[in-house]
Amino acid sequence: MGIPDEQIFPHATGEALKTVERHSEPQELVFWAGWFCPFVQRTWITLEEKGIPYQYKEVNPYRKEKHFLDINPKGLVPAIEYEGKPLYESLILCEFLEDAFPQSTPHVLPADPFARAHARLWTDHISKNVVASFFRLLQAQESDKRSAALEEHVTALRALAGQVKGPYFGGEEWGLVDTAVAPFVARDYIIAENRGFKREDVGAGWVEYAKRLESRDSVLRTTSDKEHNVQIYGRYLRNEAQSEAAKATREGRAIP
Amino acid sequence: MGIPDEQIFPHATGEALKTVERHSEPQELVFWAGWFCPFVQRTWITLEEKGIPYQYKEVNPYRKEKHFLDINPKGLVPAIEYEGKPLYESLILCEFLEDAFPQSTPHVLPADPFARAHARLWTDHISKNVVASFFRLLQAQESDKRSAALEEHVTALRALAGQVKGPYFGGEEWGLVDTAVAPFVARDYIIAENRGFKREDVGAGWVEYAKRLESRDSVLRTTSDKEHNVQIYGRYLRNEAQSEAAKATREGRAIP
Repeated sequence: MGIPDEQIFPHATGEALKTVERHSEPQELVFWAGWFCPFVQRTWITLEEKGIPYQYKEVNPYRKEKHFLDINPKGLVPAIEYEGKPLYESLILCEFLEDAFPQSTPHVLPADPFARAHARLWTDHISKNVVASFFRLLQAQESDKRSAALEEHVTALRALAGQVKGPYFGGEEWGLVDTAVAPFVARDYIIAENRGFKREDVGAGWVEYAKRLESRDSVLRTTSDKEHNVQIYGRYLRNEAQSEAAKATREGRAIP
Repeated sequence: MGIPDEQIFPHATGEALKTVERHSEPQELVFWAGWFCPFVQRTWITLEEKGIPYQYKEVNPYRKEKHFLDINPKGLVPAIEYEGKPLYESLILCEFLEDAFPQSTPHVLPADPFARAHARLWTDHISKNVVASFFRLLQAQESDKRSAALEEHVTALRALAGQVKGPYFGGEEWGLVDTAVAPFVARDYIIAENRGFKREDVGAGWVEYAKRLESRDSVLRTTSDKEHNVQIYGRYLRNEAQSEAAKATREGRAIP
């Protein structure tokens, strides 16, 4: 019996498919992606926000091509190949895109040193608390673990909500914190439909902020049809998923 | 019975004490520290490397003053208070010090976008793999867990060693990757004396690189006497430590 993830739907659908088709031509910057992956979507959102020319290449992370593994030893998506050199890790790629394309706006981070550090702090909060509790909640099988993870997730979102200047995290401009959390907000219907999550429970303007994130053009243009995401997340809900994030969560390790 | 950590030695000793005494005068930048903490030492090394004026304030993280908790909700050291505003998280503080003092050298990150991302990737490797396995190894009580953690730690260091250009990670200039790993190299005698770690087992020039890190002025100037570190780490070796890192490691969570 194959690993469930091996039967993964092979490509993006809906709005995301149109975006993939617009980025099928060879470019200096190659974006190695998985249409369903929230970490991939962070880098994809940044490429779309900044209007950087890129070639989209779909990778099934459970059946990796040799060239992909050659450029990306960890074998994780997202990865970028730029001037023949590989880079990976979603948030590091977002900062790289700012460093490599400083003229393209919106900027990933604000100019003020304090504001930059503040954005990095809350991006770190998203990785360590929001994302970690999201996966724990998805994968939790016993009801006590589910309630604990739901509580942790709502608490982590509430802390973040308290820092949102509005309309976006840092104010008028879309930035790294918005990018880091948007893919998980755009997927929160999975925990709403299966784990009792309610945006209203976060409070402090979260409902409005979440709507703003999921309706941002760059988020819509990188989002596939719900039916296919539901198929992917079914494996997480049954705690059968074999992705690095799923395995790390199961083992009580930090998500790589 | 009090938490063992509450009987912590109250202040820096040896070379680190001299550095504390040189930085006792009020300054615009206040550095909230714990003399024994490897995460604190990363920020301290960066302050010393860049020659930034700062006032050192010792915090016993298990007996936190109100003002400290006011400026730092997470209650973690290291923290910086700059122009009345608080920041925390060791590596974010290092990048903040570069952003706020861009003229001071050495620079925390190289100028080239690709080299910056590469340094961030390996800093991330240190946090997720080197540091996590260091604490697992310290705290492991059963021999099978010890061998597994030792194997993970050596493997994580070997991967890093393979990326060191020399003399420092990125070449001639001391940088963020050196800063991120140096405090753990400067403490590896604890795992050498108690958990069978050998620098030689890492290979690939690690012995020479490790010596270079621990004998760097900024590292020596921020290192307290061994006897007091041994007292601190005894609590980790018995898995009695109550620090955030110790608790996270015990619970199989990412270190906050």
